[in-house]
Amino acid sequence: MTKAYHFPIRIYYEDTDFSGNVYHATYLKFMERGRTELLRARGVYHKDLAKRGLGFVVRHMDVWYDKPAGIDDELIVETCVNSIRGARLELGQTVMRGSEILVRARVLVVVVSANGRPVRLPGDVLQLLRD
Amino acid sequence: MTKAYHFPIRIYYEDTDFSGNVYHATYLKFMERGRTELLRARGVYHKDLAKRGLGFVVRHMDVWYDKPAGIDDELIVETCVNSIRGARLELGQTVMRGSEILVRARVLVVVVSANGRPVRLPGDVLQLLRD
Amino acid sequence: MTKAYHFPIRIYYEDTDFSGNVYHATYLKFMERGRTELLRARGVYHKDLAKRGLGFVVRHMDVWYDKPAGIDDELIVETCVNSIRGARLELGQTVMRGSEILVRARVLVVVVSANGRPVRLPGDVLQLLRD
Amino acid sequence: MTKAYHFPIRIYYEDTDFSGNVYHATYLKFMERGRTELLRARGVYHKDLAKRGLGFVVRHMDVWYDKPAGIDDELIVETCVNSIRGARLELGQTVMRGSEILVRARVLVVVVSANGRPVRLPGDVLQLLRD
Repeated sequence: MTKAYHFPIRIYYEDTDFSGNVYHATYLKFMERGRTELLRARGVYHKDLAKRGLGFVVRHMDVWYDKPAGIDDELIVETCVNSIRGARLELGQTVMRGSEILVRARVLVVVVSANGRPVRLPGDVLQLLRD
Repeated sequence: MTKAYHFPIRIYYEDTDFSGNVYHATYLKFMERGRTELLRARGVYHKDLAKRGLGFVVRHMDVWYDKPAGIDDELIVETCVNSIRGARLELGQTVMRGSEILVRARVLVVVVSANGRPVRLPGDVLQLLRD
Repeated sequence: MTKAYHFPIRIYYEDTDFSGNVYHATYLKFMERGRTELLRARGVYHKDLAKRGLGFVVRHMDVWYDKPAGIDDELIVETCVNSIRGARLELGQTVMRGSEILVRARVLVVVVSANGRPVRLPGDVLQLLRD
Repeated sequence: MTKAYHFPIRIYYEDTDFSGNVYHATYLKFMERGRTELLRARGVYHKDLAKRGLGFVVRHMDVWYDKPAGIDDELIVETCVNSIRGARLELGQTVMRGSEILVRARVLVVVVSANGRPVRLPGDVLQLLRD
């Protein structure tokens, strides 16, 4: 639906483990940063959503780890919104180092109200993401 | 192949985010602890494997987030080794709070040598995991 | 004031960095677990405090890193409550591997209300910590 | 010794805890990013140092938490190298939101060889940091 959004990530000590490479759970943080920055670029902020009693939760992730990254690497998180229907956003995300694909994921995110129930993405937010 | 292995996890401040619940990437740490403790229970230690130039890397994870957990909760990580073939271990993991299923995952782990190449799980380690 | 409280910690992949040792910020998580478990042992739970609009925040930490820890190590976090006055708790914490001291810290924790203002520790909680 | 180095940090879900604010150990990661970026700006890279068998370890931190930060905040990490003597670097670091000071730290970092022993900072690296 939307164009691919690119966000750069630098690898620091905190991201690595004793194998010498980036810890596998860390890529989920990178992808969450990529989703947050895509939203920010569209004018959608977690702080504002929270004031309206709304939040995003990850419902499903399918993640392929193809190649490792290491300290000092600069990576790019590419995020595509594949579809938005009601409360559900489906995204495709890829972590790259230059043209090398390191990690690929499909992510299902759901909009929830304060009590954790799925709710339709409000029209004004939908409009910002669709433009 | 193996019996289900159960490992308890307590939720601390570090595991949560401002939504009030456990951060989604944190469950991957819990599942990694569960795999490590299953190995430890069989007499297989990362430190020893590292001395032999061997390590485990996650190649693929498919994760369903069904329900949230919160501060002070005690969870159980259940880990089943579904198959071991050559360099590949397929596992099923479930994070539960009592009888409630919170998170479910299928995990593909690969044994690699120091240069990152997949290598067959050594016979003595295979024996420990098969017993 | 109180006796030393001991809590065991196992080192996992998530705790280490590419230096091969435990990442320095990770010890703050271990010490927070130690404080939480000391409170739990006294019958004080973050979840209950939160319902009363109360929380603990760290105001000051002075941390000496004496020796490194590595993967598979089992550490002990020793926590002593040195004083409680009004909203302020002063603690001494030590992370050990057997009899070796790895990390030492002095920690000042403050009780705050929902708006972040310091408030006296409620009498019933103080009683539990003093017993 | 050196001029203050400023590095921006955006707050994401991963940085917060269920109190609604940034988790206290997270600021140590931010300060480590600030030190790494100061080094990078001078042409000093962890990857290159590691190839020479050298690394930095934190020996002591004294941290004051003055005010909280929250989701979506943009912070600045200010880093000053106060002195370099032999194997020891003393730094002052401040985390700010605009002109508000949130966290202040004094940090003692030591250069170590592969076996963990302190070693003098090599002349070429010292030159880069002194310029």
